[in-house]
Amino acid sequence: MSDVKKVVLAYSGGLDTSVIVKWLQETYNCEVVTFTADIGQGEEVEPARAKAQALGVKEIYIEDLREEFVRDYVYPMFRANTIYEGEYLLGTSIARPLIAKRLIEIANETGADAISHGATGKGNDQVRFELGGYALKPGVKVIAPWREWDLTSREKLMAYCEEHNIPVDFSNKKKKSPYSMDANLLHISYEGGILEDPWAEAEDDMWRWSVSPEAAPDQPTYVELTFEKGDIVAIDGEALKAHEVLEKLNKVGGDNGIGRLDIVENRYVGMKSRGCYETPGGTIMLRAHRAIESLTLDREEAHLKDQLMPKYAEVIYNGYWWSPERRMLQAAIDETQKNVSGVVRMKLYKGNATVVGRKSEQSLFDESIATFEDDAGAYNQKDAEGFIKLNALRLRIAAGKGRQQS
Amino acid sequence: MSDVKKVVLAYSGGLDTSVIVKWLQETYNCEVVTFTADIGQGEEVEPARAKAQALGVKEIYIEDLREEFVRDYVYPMFRANTIYEGEYLLGTSIARPLIAKRLIEIANETGADAISHGATGKGNDQVRFELGGYALKPGVKVIAPWREWDLTSREKLMAYCEEHNIPVDFSNKKKKSPYSMDANLLHISYEGGILEDPWAEAEDDMWRWSVSPEAAPDQPTYVELTFEKGDIVAIDGEALKAHEVLEKLNKVGGDNGIGRLDIVENRYVGMKSRGCYETPGGTIMLRAHRAIESLTLDREEAHLKDQLMPKYAEVIYNGYWWSPERRMLQAAIDETQKNVSGVVRMKLYKGNATVVGRKSEQSLFDESIATFEDDAGAYNQKDAEGFIKLNALRLRIAAGKGRQQS
Amino acid sequence: MSDVKKVVLAYSGGLDTSVIVKWLQETYNCEVVTFTADIGQGEEVEPARAKAQALGVKEIYIEDLREEFVRDYVYPMFRANTIYEGEYLLGTSIARPLIAKRLIEIANETGADAISHGATGKGNDQVRFELGGYALKPGVKVIAPWREWDLTSREKLMAYCEEHNIPVDFSNKKKKSPYSMDANLLHISYEGGILEDPWAEAEDDMWRWSVSPEAAPDQPTYVELTFEKGDIVAIDGEALKAHEVLEKLNKVGGDNGIGRLDIVENRYVGMKSRGCYETPGGTIMLRAHRAIESLTLDREEAHLKDQLMPKYAEVIYNGYWWSPERRMLQAAIDETQKNVSGVVRMKLYKGNATVVGRKSEQSLFDESIATFEDDAGAYNQKDAEGFIKLNALRLRIAAGKGRQQS
Amino acid sequence: MSDVKKVVLAYSGGLDTSVIVKWLQETYNCEVVTFTADIGQGEEVEPARAKAQALGVKEIYIEDLREEFVRDYVYPMFRANTIYEGEYLLGTSIARPLIAKRLIEIANETGADAISHGATGKGNDQVRFELGGYALKPGVKVIAPWREWDLTSREKLMAYCEEHNIPVDFSNKKKKSPYSMDANLLHISYEGGILEDPWAEAEDDMWRWSVSPEAAPDQPTYVELTFEKGDIVAIDGEALKAHEVLEKLNKVGGDNGIGRLDIVENRYVGMKSRGCYETPGGTIMLRAHRAIESLTLDREEAHLKDQLMPKYAEVIYNGYWWSPERRMLQAAIDETQKNVSGVVRMKLYKGNATVVGRKSEQSLFDESIATFEDDAGAYNQKDAEGFIKLNALRLRIAAGKGRQQS
Repeated sequence: MSDVKKVVLAYSGGLDTSVIVKWLQETYNCEVVTFTADIGQGEEVEPARAKAQALGVKEIYIEDLREEFVRDYVYPMFRANTIYEGEYLLGTSIARPLIAKRLIEIANETGADAISHGATGKGNDQVRFELGGYALKPGVKVIAPWREWDLTSREKLMAYCEEHNIPVDFSNKKKKSPYSMDANLLHISYEGGILEDPWAEAEDDMWRWSVSPEAAPDQPTYVELTFEKGDIVAIDGEALKAHEVLEKLNKVGGDNGIGRLDIVENRYVGMKSRGCYETPGGTIMLRAHRAIESLTLDREEAHLKDQLMPKYAEVIYNGYWWSPERRMLQAAIDETQKNVSGVVRMKLYKGNATVVGRKSEQSLFDESIATFEDDAGAYNQKDAEGFIKLNALRLRIAAGKGRQQS
Repeated sequence: MSDVKKVVLAYSGGLDTSVIVKWLQETYNCEVVTFTADIGQGEEVEPARAKAQALGVKEIYIEDLREEFVRDYVYPMFRANTIYEGEYLLGTSIARPLIAKRLIEIANETGADAISHGATGKGNDQVRFELGGYALKPGVKVIAPWREWDLTSREKLMAYCEEHNIPVDFSNKKKKSPYSMDANLLHISYEGGILEDPWAEAEDDMWRWSVSPEAAPDQPTYVELTFEKGDIVAIDGEALKAHEVLEKLNKVGGDNGIGRLDIVENRYVGMKSRGCYETPGGTIMLRAHRAIESLTLDREEAHLKDQLMPKYAEVIYNGYWWSPERRMLQAAIDETQKNVSGVVRMKLYKGNATVVGRKSEQSLFDESIATFEDDAGAYNQKDAEGFIKLNALRLRIAAGKGRQQS
Repeated sequence: MSDVKKVVLAYSGGLDTSVIVKWLQETYNCEVVTFTADIGQGEEVEPARAKAQALGVKEIYIEDLREEFVRDYVYPMFRANTIYEGEYLLGTSIARPLIAKRLIEIANETGADAISHGATGKGNDQVRFELGGYALKPGVKVIAPWREWDLTSREKLMAYCEEHNIPVDFSNKKKKSPYSMDANLLHISYEGGILEDPWAEAEDDMWRWSVSPEAAPDQPTYVELTFEKGDIVAIDGEALKAHEVLEKLNKVGGDNGIGRLDIVENRYVGMKSRGCYETPGGTIMLRAHRAIESLTLDREEAHLKDQLMPKYAEVIYNGYWWSPERRMLQAAIDETQKNVSGVVRMKLYKGNATVVGRKSEQSLFDESIATFEDDAGAYNQKDAEGFIKLNALRLRIAAGKGRQQS
Repeated sequence: MSDVKKVVLAYSGGLDTSVIVKWLQETYNCEVVTFTADIGQGEEVEPARAKAQALGVKEIYIEDLREEFVRDYVYPMFRANTIYEGEYLLGTSIARPLIAKRLIEIANETGADAISHGATGKGNDQVRFELGGYALKPGVKVIAPWREWDLTSREKLMAYCEEHNIPVDFSNKKKKSPYSMDANLLHISYEGGILEDPWAEAEDDMWRWSVSPEAAPDQPTYVELTFEKGDIVAIDGEALKAHEVLEKLNKVGGDNGIGRLDIVENRYVGMKSRGCYETPGGTIMLRAHRAIESLTLDREEAHLKDQLMPKYAEVIYNGYWWSPERRMLQAAIDETQKNVSGVVRMKLYKGNATVVGRKSEQSLFDESIATFEDDAGAYNQKDAEGFIKLNALRLRIAAGKGRQQS
């Protein structure tokens, strides 16, 4: 273990990763560089500086990555209407590639030969961090303390803190939550505790970002979202940066009880786990994006996108953002978004995010053809007969030869 | 046009199809057989008998197909979590194959050589009726009056009625709706009128099956849905037939403002159209089915189902229920449902149908492995290192050879 | 029919399209512009000028499109290893979009309001020409004489010629072949005649481009093909233009009996047809392209390409080259070809085109890892255990819960 | 390592697995059960009995699994026209699930708690054996000596033999081949040696099952293959069992120089490797199966099969035969084969396996429709206009709105 000289750690400033700082210094006898990023998790990142200094860290990176996160990761993913297993908006998955990329860039800048993270050996996040790390710096050494050490219970961890003079108030949670949580601008997640019984309903005081539908206002809120090439660029006519869009939608969505989700999902490591998620802004964005696409995408590209989406979601969920297959899928997706521009009007009300109108200068909706009224010859109904006859031909031949049809 | 001897007409008992009876008799000088089915559209079908008799029809078929409709069409479709273009639950599409099948069977029973329907030349329904007809009886003649006649406006239709003594109160709508509507046990749909402007919000008095979320009760309703092999067989412990399940879920869903949808969709004939739908029971069923699958399906079969679903939805939407490709997909889907049994608990509240618990004797959720607590060796965290290392190998080799990774 | 002023005809200079010139002039009382292109069909195109002049045509386009054809259509298609129904290299399909594009461009240049072609109403080519035409000029009028006129037999056609003084030696076939043929730089095809019986073996004197394997030389020929970004740019070290590559490979392939194919295929219009094809150069290119990809493509992008290919082939076969879905798929395919460079060595012998070696500076083949000899620690065999264990986890959980596994 | 009581070993009777017998006895101090199967590898299996006895093995299983192998594994796989990465017929992959199944069944019969195999830690076979083992007996212990021991060179292995009195003539190869080989009724494979340089052409004396095309007879051989429900049941009219079919096709194929393949493939463990294969019978079967499908499959099910095939191939290659996703795909594939019956006539000549005729009572080829001659009204060419017009509608609307089309 002596071959590691310097390691860059994804450092939250919390108790667990503070223990990891010390454990890395001790176990590997190496220098630790900490990297703390604001990706919208809703906690101050600056306090991490003093904590890292107190642990003897000399190279401390603290960064505001909110805009980059939404612009370069969340937005591209939403262009595909990405959902994992029919429900999950990939809030945790999509933050990991950015963290992995910065860990590697900082390793390159500081001459570190290793990276480290605080993810456990049972979850998806270790995979996402490490696949990203290996893809971007193939010779990097990865240290995953939770897979190596013997601090496998809260008690042992506390004992280690005491022994090594790590102040327990490094814990940045006011009171210890019974849940394992993860948050960024796209979502907050909850696992563990009573959620480990999939039959048990989540307790109402677990949720942090949204009010319950019951507690939401009795009057609906309407918002108008302006898209350009698949991305939201303005709300109610006000131009906003990507991360401002998501912040604003999180606020208005959360206020209206939107975006709670309770699912059992399949982890890449082979087990099922139960998770609860709050994704207020993302839930609104997804429906709005589908609505603007419904006007502006050609049918066949829309259907092809839908067929590719589950694979794209799997690629991201499993941690392969930095892979050729993701770039290949992204190229196809982005090709379709050139005309996905316009405005979607949504009604937010007690948990419901409902599309009530959409318009676009790139609209392919043609009222003169679609109308139930007289279309003045825009569409020749007689064409339908030949269309149906030839589409039926293979079925008729088969039936004519006695093939079973029902 | 003299070569048609007898034609079976899908007859609603309404004004339009009554005109078609007369028009067929006149134009083709042929006998007309009427077929009227209760598939849960919410109107009495028996009155169609007297109307048909008044039009001189001698062979009149009036049938209750509700159970067959839900059991053999709706349920198989829901096993795939089928959604068209990310939103639409295919309420109209799934009713057509059954109508087509009965039209052909009745044609065979009555010695008819043709079938007819009241669908327009711009829509999907003509395709669905006719593809089904041709697939099941390849030599059948199909008559689509809306593509042939010159009664292209309401005025001309009324003039025809007057001229041919067709009582205008054959119209079975109390007051003429401005919308084109279609209903069955799965849904009711609205098209036309102000909906032809996709930016215009649907008027609240358009909706017929559900209260608005605003008007729904202030207290949530909980239901427990029991699945067997992918299908719901009981609600709150009470065993029910398939169509009773859907009736009950429509009632409780509609009462809680669930299942309204407002979309622009791509028709098979090549145009976009705007439609509004109420699918209260189906909306609940879809989420519940995903929830019971989340416990009982293997990950890879679940993902494969998700990848096949858009194609399966397209096949049904486009009218190819009676096709080899639908049977092929159904075989794959049904193979996965053998263990999809258990109970899902849902909370219904003002438009929200939320899964709050799920349990199953076939559950693949393993608490002893998934737990954040000590798992007593059920899962060896060290395995994750090798798993990640080999999954990363191709990425590392590529990066090692200087391939661009970001 | 009087509303057509000027029509651009895809004119081969042969008898059938000469009749069409006259028939268009007579039937539509319009001016005819002829367009004749050399796409490598192996016949002189310049003689078409005098024939068109003799028919009173004033605007005559004769063009050499060989390089554009191979560079912009054949090559992009081969990047996907495109095969229709497991066998067919799409030789006819890929030439149609270019013809359609030039027809429309010429219509725009000459102020024509219509286009016309000599394809029958039963085949795929009418679809390909017309979809292309409509996609590129939505208001264009398309005239398909074979679907309109009554010259439905050879006798009637000849009578028409006599009546209209069309010299029968306009027929550009020395002796009338019993087959319907189509040729371009990628292939020559044969349909009809005895081929209409799928059990009948094609006669040896039907084939025109290749010797039979039996008649090919007894010594193999070796060629080295150099790829850059997925396209062949040199043969045996000699840099060549795209169409020169294909010409040379057709020659060497045909000389060695390579590229004959005899299949039954499914047409887009709903029927099966039997066709024979000679594609000497394409057959070599396909195998060589797969070989260079085998060294230079990442596994997952390669597999994804293979999954998308049948859809891409279908899109081209059905005539949707000029469509959003083709552009979307092309974007994905082209994204993967950036590193598909290197050299493939092939042995050509009596019908066999065999890859015997491949090398690339972008190779991802790593001898130090793949070796059966000592790899000096490049690969840690112990990683495989964790890899297998976690990949097996979902299967073990299922088996542990009593799920049927075989 | 003391917790293993009895282990079932996949025993070839060769030197390497004989060393493993001894090593298992020593290292784990456990009883070893040997299992040797004839799956058509072309070596006697009975001699393995004496060798096992000499090594002190008491429970010895020697079985002829040729018919089961072809009938239950090879044939179902060929129903999908399965090819991995465009080239490889999966000869090794498809034999592993049967071996894994028997290992587990024998473990259950003999009360063994572990299984073992002689596959290396770099290859796919370890994965296939172990995934199968875990899927069928989730608690089984797997011992993979090549990942555990230090006998990492031929010298060490020989030293171990000498030390433990293992007769070196246990080696069942006459002279030690420079290649790593694997054989069964479907194929023989070669890896290693000079093949580790992908540019080096394989030496002609490497190939064992086939003559070179050059050395094959100067006269072609014709065979007629009779299919029933997708499987070959007779050759030249003679009814044969599944394994007899493959034996006979291997003979006639090998005699005519058919089925050699030289590729670089992507292993599941993340590396590329170069392999050469001889699959004479399989090569003939694949083309013949496609040919009988070309007559008897509906177009859309055929295309869907082609889209699913790469995934199915990947599932088998990666070792997931005993998985829900394979069963799901198999259900879809088998559903399509009900009418895949008839006769295919093939010409075998110097490396070429060419389809020259096909016929079937279930044929969907309709000469009366496909003909170039007068079809007596079987097909109405005018239908094509409506077919094309509506298929073009979305493209025309887009072009009419100024969308880029080229």
